[in-house]
Amino acid sequence: MALADLRAETRNDSGIATAIGVLKQRFGERLQTGQSLREQHSHTTTYIPSQLPDAVIFADGTQEVQDIVRVCAEHKVPIIPFGTGTSLEGGVNAPAGGICIDLMQMNRILSVNPEDLDVTLQPGVTREELNTHLRDQGLFFPIDPGANASLGGMASTRASGTNAVRYGTMRENVVNLTAVLPDGSVVKTGGRARKSSAGYDLARLLVGSEGTLGIITELTLRLQGIPENISSGVCQFPSVEDACNTTILAMQTGLPMARIELLDALQVDMINQYSGLDYELKPTLFLEFHGTDVGVAEQIRLFEEIASDFGSSNIQWVDTVEARNKLWKARHNAYYAMLAYRPGCQGIATDACVPISRLADCISETQKDAEELGLIAPVIGHVGDGNFHMTPLVMMDDPDEVARAETMIERLNMRTIAMEGTCTGEHGIGQGKRRFLELELGSGAGLMATIKRAIDPDNIMNPGKVVSLGDV
Amino acid sequence: MALADLRAETRNDSGIATAIGVLKQRFGERLQTGQSLREQHSHTTTYIPSQLPDAVIFADGTQEVQDIVRVCAEHKVPIIPFGTGTSLEGGVNAPAGGICIDLMQMNRILSVNPEDLDVTLQPGVTREELNTHLRDQGLFFPIDPGANASLGGMASTRASGTNAVRYGTMRENVVNLTAVLPDGSVVKTGGRARKSSAGYDLARLLVGSEGTLGIITELTLRLQGIPENISSGVCQFPSVEDACNTTILAMQTGLPMARIELLDALQVDMINQYSGLDYELKPTLFLEFHGTDVGVAEQIRLFEEIASDFGSSNIQWVDTVEARNKLWKARHNAYYAMLAYRPGCQGIATDACVPISRLADCISETQKDAEELGLIAPVIGHVGDGNFHMTPLVMMDDPDEVARAETMIERLNMRTIAMEGTCTGEHGIGQGKRRFLELELGSGAGLMATIKRAIDPDNIMNPGKVVSLGDV
Repeated sequence: MALADLRAETRNDSGIATAIGVLKQRFGERLQTGQSLREQHSHTTTYIPSQLPDAVIFADGTQEVQDIVRVCAEHKVPIIPFGTGTSLEGGVNAPAGGICIDLMQMNRILSVNPEDLDVTLQPGVTREELNTHLRDQGLFFPIDPGANASLGGMASTRASGTNAVRYGTMRENVVNLTAVLPDGSVVKTGGRARKSSAGYDLARLLVGSEGTLGIITELTLRLQGIPENISSGVCQFPSVEDACNTTILAMQTGLPMARIELLDALQVDMINQYSGLDYELKPTLFLEFHGTDVGVAEQIRLFEEIASDFGSSNIQWVDTVEARNKLWKARHNAYYAMLAYRPGCQGIATDACVPISRLADCISETQKDAEELGLIAPVIGHVGDGNFHMTPLVMMDDPDEVARAETMIERLNMRTIAMEGTCTGEHGIGQGKRRFLELELGSGAGLMATIKRAIDPDNIMNPGKVVSLGDV
Repeated sequence: MALADLRAETRNDSGIATAIGVLKQRFGERLQTGQSLREQHSHTTTYIPSQLPDAVIFADGTQEVQDIVRVCAEHKVPIIPFGTGTSLEGGVNAPAGGICIDLMQMNRILSVNPEDLDVTLQPGVTREELNTHLRDQGLFFPIDPGANASLGGMASTRASGTNAVRYGTMRENVVNLTAVLPDGSVVKTGGRARKSSAGYDLARLLVGSEGTLGIITELTLRLQGIPENISSGVCQFPSVEDACNTTILAMQTGLPMARIELLDALQVDMINQYSGLDYELKPTLFLEFHGTDVGVAEQIRLFEEIASDFGSSNIQWVDTVEARNKLWKARHNAYYAMLAYRPGCQGIATDACVPISRLADCISETQKDAEELGLIAPVIGHVGDGNFHMTPLVMMDDPDEVARAETMIERLNMRTIAMEGTCTGEHGIGQGKRRFLELELGSGAGLMATIKRAIDPDNIMNPGKVVSLGDV
């Protein structure tokens, strides 16, 4: 057992050298092999050790990506697509070396269609850039994983985050994709119709495939109108179970909550310290409601009725835009708050997602594990989706503590799977969770390998991630 | 050019005879080869001529489906899964003969989880059976394609219908699937978590694959709480364009309409006659709002404001449950109203879905085509999704009229594709639309064939549907 699944991958040194030579001629200074740039392109927000690519190319456009892929395909050289590098599970590591394609110069917004509520753009546009661009038109893109990630990366990893409870994940919000396949051909998965039953759902196959089936070079996303009223608040509970039960009842009632984020008392303490807040040290929900003035007022009234039945405090409303931004910024900075709480530690973010009826049990049993194992491990979660992260803060130079964190993570994953949940609600498989994917899905993991082999027979697209091919 | 794409498929007569012999021993009277039963199992609500299977087996349970598939795989015999037989594009035809597996005896609801808002069931449960079962718990399953289809069939074809504008299609509402693959292995695509980023989205790959990749033997679906208030009404407009523009603005405003169905004046005439209604012969929206009392009142107020700007009549509210049921029954009976309008005709239901900004143009240009071609072709549509059906009513013994209908359909499909739409929003590809799938997706259709070949190398799962393999 180890924290990450860094199975050995065979390097194709001569192929890599040849491909770099050919591509250098084509791309000149846009192909770089310097150590520090290669390090930047494998260093991510992760506990997994870096594995550097041999070169980084800054591509501009579908045609250039095609050119790179064709050369790599010819020489059977690994290709690793790169966006903002916010992967948590080693998604941009290069375990067999190869060429990293940096897509961040492909950052053009190609068309916004307000009547159709969609936008077509290149993969290097970040979600904040998109929302800044859209604001004047009264539109926004709701998926918010916290990090200012690239939209191509978010599609690749099926990202979600705080708003998913209302607006869905990238799965529901990608209309179509253009991708370069491992043989260098370009595929577009469909048009801009809101729905389609035209054959296999290629967009959904590529969303979440983490660059292992193709490289996304263009995408069309669904947009939303900015609601008339956005109201945020904070609600505190006697126990995690009360917070979960409030959430369950609110969901059953059909309350269209836009955000409902759980923090345990430990996480509240960290956020208070890091972001200058002063919430009581109790299990807490950060809430947001979207709608008309009338609609939001009703949502709030109904939510307060439910929450008070579970012993909640009154909701502390966050009335100004500034205060609201401060609240959500504090939420998004939770990871940095953790690191600051225990200087020198590494946070190993887990990512469990279970049916919501099992959420309170899953959290409390894992909290007991952490206590028993002597770990500091705050809880934060997208509770409306049954999705939470527990993040043991580990001194990586203490092998005993690392081993205890491994034990906690192992138990959490097994518990999640036993509860009919998943080992990852939103962080993806990458290198970190391949073993758990196999435990979770059994023959389903084999079916994924069948698909991978058919589309990428030479295993050049982000090898060593998601699927285990056995023969590698 | 022909209405349907019935490419020749090679029959494997000796394999079929052997498989039937083996399966007869195993299944006894549950395997039938009588002509009339085989006809029932290839006769569907379609214009496409029947192609009969060689035998029909009534399967009960995943294990039995596995047994059948293993025998068929060994002898390379086609397998056609069958639910209620409401396919519109030849989905249950047996162009190369083979074994039809009737799944309607697999009709058990296995578990309802009110806290998680999901249900696990067998594929032969119909949507009406499910909703009857759920009613006492205050829950419902929203997807409503009109026909009382089986839920396995609805998943296989990525069905949607009148409620999709609010609740999504089967794509968004299938949590997980259990399926028997062409090699007889069983795969379960995931657990019951509301979201997951655990590898490739196998559930979405199987949803809409029309039985060509595997046979669904169990599924978990998302449920909704029955809203406090359901209000239906009818709103009439000077033109189709006004009705479309009202819809666009309502969607941009974020009105969560549950149903918004367009009928042109001709379709209104047919429904009036068939269902004893007396609406004015004008472009018409049938509407439904779901929510709290306060929420629905506000939705209605906002909708009326928008609609009146586009010259609508006052909304005629349908207040009683009986009147509401009558309205939606009339909507669902539109197809029968068409057939009654021109006795002896066949209705050839098209299925176009375009970005909503192009919908009015797409409809009016196609109406012009119909007029120019001398066809009677009413329009009915799920206008919030940009999805509509035009149904030329054709005397199939009049070759000239059939040819004119072909011309209309060809032009509509090409127009839809040119408008960045799809040749099928919800009816699926089956045999009827393979040619248009290729035109619409180009290399995407090739990628589908790659996937099909990898998962079903002997092409035994519903051959001749969806993908064109070239070598068949």
